[in-house]
Amino acid sequence: MAANGSGGVHGSPLDDGFGDDLGSDWYIYETAEPAVPQDNAFPSAIPDCDPTISPRLYHACMAPVSLAVLLGLSLLVKRRRLRRGCWNGVPGLLSPANFLEEEGNRGLVAAVFGILFSSLCILVLDRDPLPLVPNSSQHSREYWKILALLYYPAFYCPLAACATVGHRAGYLVGCLLSWCHCVVHIWQKVDCPQSPKIYRYYSTLSYVPIILCLVVLSLWYPALLIRSFTGHEETLDKEVSGRGYYKKYLRAVLAKRPRKESPSKLEESLLHRVRAYLCSYIYAPEEGFQLPLKLVLSLTTSVVAVYQVALLLLVAFVPTIQIVRAGMTKDVVVLLVQFGLVPSENPGMPGDMEKELSTVKHYLWSLEVCYVCSLVLCCLLTMAMLLRTLVMHRSNLKALYQGAVLDVFYKAHILRPSRQAIVCWMSFASFQTAFACLGLLIQQVIFFICSAAFTFLVVIPLQSGTSTHLFRLVQNMWPFWLTLVGAVLAQNLAAHSQFLEHHPLRKELTNRRALYIVTFLLFPINVLVGVLAGVWRMLISALYNAVHFCQLDISLLNRGVETFDPGYHAYCHYLKTEVSQSHPLMRAFCLLLLQPPRPRGTPQPRAGDVEEGIQLMQSTKAPSGGGRLRQSRARWWLAYTLLNNPSLLACRKNALCDPTANGAQLSPPKP
Amino acid sequence: MAANGSGGVHGSPLDDGFGDDLGSDWYIYETAEPAVPQDNAFPSAIPDCDPTISPRLYHACMAPVSLAVLLGLSLLVKRRRLRRGCWNGVPGLLSPANFLEEEGNRGLVAAVFGILFSSLCILVLDRDPLPLVPNSSQHSREYWKILALLYYPAFYCPLAACATVGHRAGYLVGCLLSWCHCVVHIWQKVDCPQSPKIYRYYSTLSYVPIILCLVVLSLWYPALLIRSFTGHEETLDKEVSGRGYYKKYLRAVLAKRPRKESPSKLEESLLHRVRAYLCSYIYAPEEGFQLPLKLVLSLTTSVVAVYQVALLLLVAFVPTIQIVRAGMTKDVVVLLVQFGLVPSENPGMPGDMEKELSTVKHYLWSLEVCYVCSLVLCCLLTMAMLLRTLVMHRSNLKALYQGAVLDVFYKAHILRPSRQAIVCWMSFASFQTAFACLGLLIQQVIFFICSAAFTFLVVIPLQSGTSTHLFRLVQNMWPFWLTLVGAVLAQNLAAHSQFLEHHPLRKELTNRRALYIVTFLLFPINVLVGVLAGVWRMLISALYNAVHFCQLDISLLNRGVETFDPGYHAYCHYLKTEVSQSHPLMRAFCLLLLQPPRPRGTPQPRAGDVEEGIQLMQSTKAPSGGGRLRQSRARWWLAYTLLNNPSLLACRKNALCDPTANGAQLSPPKP
Repeated sequence: MAANGSGGVHGSPLDDGFGDDLGSDWYIYETAEPAVPQDNAFPSAIPDCDPTISPRLYHACMAPVSLAVLLGLSLLVKRRRLRRGCWNGVPGLLSPANFLEEEGNRGLVAAVFGILFSSLCILVLDRDPLPLVPNSSQHSREYWKILALLYYPAFYCPLAACATVGHRAGYLVGCLLSWCHCVVHIWQKVDCPQSPKIYRYYSTLSYVPIILCLVVLSLWYPALLIRSFTGHEETLDKEVSGRGYYKKYLRAVLAKRPRKESPSKLEESLLHRVRAYLCSYIYAPEEGFQLPLKLVLSLTTSVVAVYQVALLLLVAFVPTIQIVRAGMTKDVVVLLVQFGLVPSENPGMPGDMEKELSTVKHYLWSLEVCYVCSLVLCCLLTMAMLLRTLVMHRSNLKALYQGAVLDVFYKAHILRPSRQAIVCWMSFASFQTAFACLGLLIQQVIFFICSAAFTFLVVIPLQSGTSTHLFRLVQNMWPFWLTLVGAVLAQNLAAHSQFLEHHPLRKELTNRRALYIVTFLLFPINVLVGVLAGVWRMLISALYNAVHFCQLDISLLNRGVETFDPGYHAYCHYLKTEVSQSHPLMRAFCLLLLQPPRPRGTPQPRAGDVEEGIQLMQSTKAPSGGGRLRQSRARWWLAYTLLNNPSLLACRKNALCDPTANGAQLSPPKP
Repeated sequence: MAANGSGGVHGSPLDDGFGDDLGSDWYIYETAEPAVPQDNAFPSAIPDCDPTISPRLYHACMAPVSLAVLLGLSLLVKRRRLRRGCWNGVPGLLSPANFLEEEGNRGLVAAVFGILFSSLCILVLDRDPLPLVPNSSQHSREYWKILALLYYPAFYCPLAACATVGHRAGYLVGCLLSWCHCVVHIWQKVDCPQSPKIYRYYSTLSYVPIILCLVVLSLWYPALLIRSFTGHEETLDKEVSGRGYYKKYLRAVLAKRPRKESPSKLEESLLHRVRAYLCSYIYAPEEGFQLPLKLVLSLTTSVVAVYQVALLLLVAFVPTIQIVRAGMTKDVVVLLVQFGLVPSENPGMPGDMEKELSTVKHYLWSLEVCYVCSLVLCCLLTMAMLLRTLVMHRSNLKALYQGAVLDVFYKAHILRPSRQAIVCWMSFASFQTAFACLGLLIQQVIFFICSAAFTFLVVIPLQSGTSTHLFRLVQNMWPFWLTLVGAVLAQNLAAHSQFLEHHPLRKELTNRRALYIVTFLLFPINVLVGVLAGVWRMLISALYNAVHFCQLDISLLNRGVETFDPGYHAYCHYLKTEVSQSHPLMRAFCLLLLQPPRPRGTPQPRAGDVEEGIQLMQSTKAPSGGGRLRQSRARWWLAYTLLNNPSLLACRKNALCDPTANGAQLSPPKP
């Protein structure tokens, strides 16, 4: 640092220099920066705005309504269940989504999770975390935040639960609820588009995902309602859409595959391989396979997370640097010139500084461009990696469905649920979301530093025509680089032409003595090559890990210790639970076994009834005609299933020994 | 930064404050710091010292001597070869070491490589890289350095080559050469122990490995010479010590293994497993297996590298900070207090600053302690990893010798030499050395930052009893941490007791609806847990990669792309060459085939003759008695070998088709 004969930056002699308005303005913003949320930075610019429907009023009304809806739906479900059996193994509570069952309303659940995650983002930065308790004190805010973490899921739960009930009343209530939420949110943002938090439009922009998701919900529910009225066929189809998928999967598995493989694998051109590699990054839906609901949810929340983090990064930096640029005065420029940060023709004379002022502004503008460019790059990369992760999920799931455990894991695993597996399954979507956030943040830091370094060390010196230290260093060291490149090339050439004997069948080492001599003589140069290789090793591992941070399907650690990576650990256990509990083939067979020939009047067994396993009790209870036929068919299917799935035997044995086991009831076939 | 009303650090108003001697002294050192090598920083303290035997004189004398020795030995080898065959497939040049052959003088070659690497270290930082050309200009120095990279290996080559000749004259010359080198180096350092470079004793300390290695050489050569005189038995034993190893290996492979495995593997206690894990980090020699020469060399140079880098890190920092500490004045303390870096009771009054001065000195002392501690930790860790890498090398080599390719590599590899494999084999030891240097450097940066942060954020505040921001933050956030811990514990407990049905045969998922509800409700909290897991993922991958940086046997990248890591890539190819070219079993059989019953008078086939493959020609040429017996035995062995090593057939076929192939000559068994 050329710090010859200048005062400090923040020193008292400087305060005199900030007489003009712009300068003092800039100074205020600059000192306001360290206080993180920068609340009230524009006290005069943005008036305090009270929306017609305050958040407090909104929550005070909607929270009881939500609770009432939940209770009402629970009673409805209870009443319908009572008709058939008092306590059918399912608790009376309403589940917002049946994550392991393939149901039709995947988009709806995903939208609710999007809302939930956006609320969490807003809550973390908010001053009033729980809108029911406004103006909380600094001390109690922590507690309210923790409470809010549980409040929001409960608050938005009915939005998803209305659909899982599968009843017209539920759809109607869902319609009303989603419309209410949507209208209130839009109204609030139209009323008060600006807020003093971080950036004037930050609040509005951060609510965009919530409003979009609510719009999706308020269109989805009416569609469900209309479909439930228009025809029974469609309703049934929708209700058993999961079965539709299982059947499709079964058909895809049993179908004979057309021979797609090209007869000569060796003739594949480079272009073809590049295209195949690029295609492996793009997720295209496949006939007969759909991703489990949890993965769809994790992708949705990850995309919302990328949006929220990118928005926060953007509004925290760009407006600030724009203000700094606008408020840049000659006094500051003089200082910067004296510190040697800005080149000047007359560094001793702080007189006419017009040219230097424009240089400083150009520098700040370059910094802004670097920041935005790297942010765009990070977002694109993260999205690409999320797409890639979907492809990996699919291939891993398909491999595990076929039992190819070693294609997915490095060591053999037993695919059955355990305590750890269930905990990891529960938190999988959350981990994916959190990792997407952190990954974007890490990438932005790395890419911004790299792009700024590139700009200020290469681009700007090239523009201005001055040569920096870097250029001079490279210029002085060219014989060194040339030597290294020459040594590596010479070794490769010698290895190819001198030390390798090209027999027609196999290559053999030859000229050993010369090889030993060359090895000894080139040892010091190879050490220097090794230093470069080491730097490359460091850079590539850091970059690879930063770019693939958001991917849970790969471990950032070495092969032997890969499960110490918490992300990969969670993924492995998630896969175990998912594959062992919702193998589509098993479900397809179970559904075939359950499916009775449709007699009029008797209610169809709904997807919800199947959840606890293979419930064959119904077929013995049902008193309608054709019982003998159905029973025999069920037995035949059962025998066939057990014959082909010996692993189910243990399950069946347990169920037979313990008939009161929770919901999993297999009727023993009476001979 | 609390920068209220103070001037800059390097500003002109400060220069007045440095009236006293200590202050100005400190100031001089401080401004001299940015010029990297800090040459001539103590112009008055350390007098320029000219040793009696200047480096120029030493090299001017020894370089021609070395050249003459090389030529003389070459002629000697030529003369001896001429007796048996004019051009026996070996070039007339002397190889410093037969890296792929297991010879006896491994320690000797390792010592020469140690000298070579130490010379490289000294050369990189030196002002006169080529001692033959003193006082080189700044511009030409680059070129001399490059030349020196090739000069030093050639200069020290005779030290190793004298032993590989395997002749008494060679040992004698080796004795004289090593004594000469050793005496000159010790004399130089006794003459001038201090030098102005970096630190007064740096030069002497950096020469310690060279002197130690030279001492080893000057003891090893006399021992060789004496052994060559005392008896033929020992000489032969030494000469064919490689054969001794191969026979031992063969015996170990063929020996029946005692059943060491404990009968009940499940009963292994935790203590036992911990001990086994710790033992896997310690390399204990094993009967019947010895590491290839290249690995021994790479370990030696790595240890020297750790010493040199640690020395450089130590002398570049500790003396400087000690000078700064000794030269700390009250004026500087006033500044630090005003910047808020040092706590003070009366920050406005720069009057009596005794207490603050001692605080600053205590801080600097803490920094020094942190630095030294982290350096010691880094060195220990790197040495542990180098030991661990030896264990891994052994297990990998043993697995590959047995053909278990998939135990070592993730994908199947064909073990045969290729251009890449030879280049990687040539540079393997260099890479290992360079990576040890870089790894130590990276670890030191990370550990120093961590230990300094820990000291200044935790230890010093605890000592002084003041509470810092960190403590207050932790204090304020404890409900948050408690919530996260509680949520994770609750999920684990619920998973264990509620969602998992403990059948005697297998565990099953149960209470699905409750599981879905809990998953939904805990989603926001799990996102925060995920953020912590992500931070942990980042930290553990960074730490793991930093600690294992010096290990070439593991890739720092993910399983699928692990060969993009240059270190691991070099290691894989090194293993290929090593295993395919010097499989001990193959060599043992070849030696058995070659070994004739010892007739008196005929010279023993020496290890050097065997190097180009299986030379059975001799057995047919030898005209002495028992030829029929020997030939039949050779044929029997050949048939047995080929029967049990079908892979050798291809090699043999090539050799038969092309009898003029370089050295690899197999005699066809005449039926």
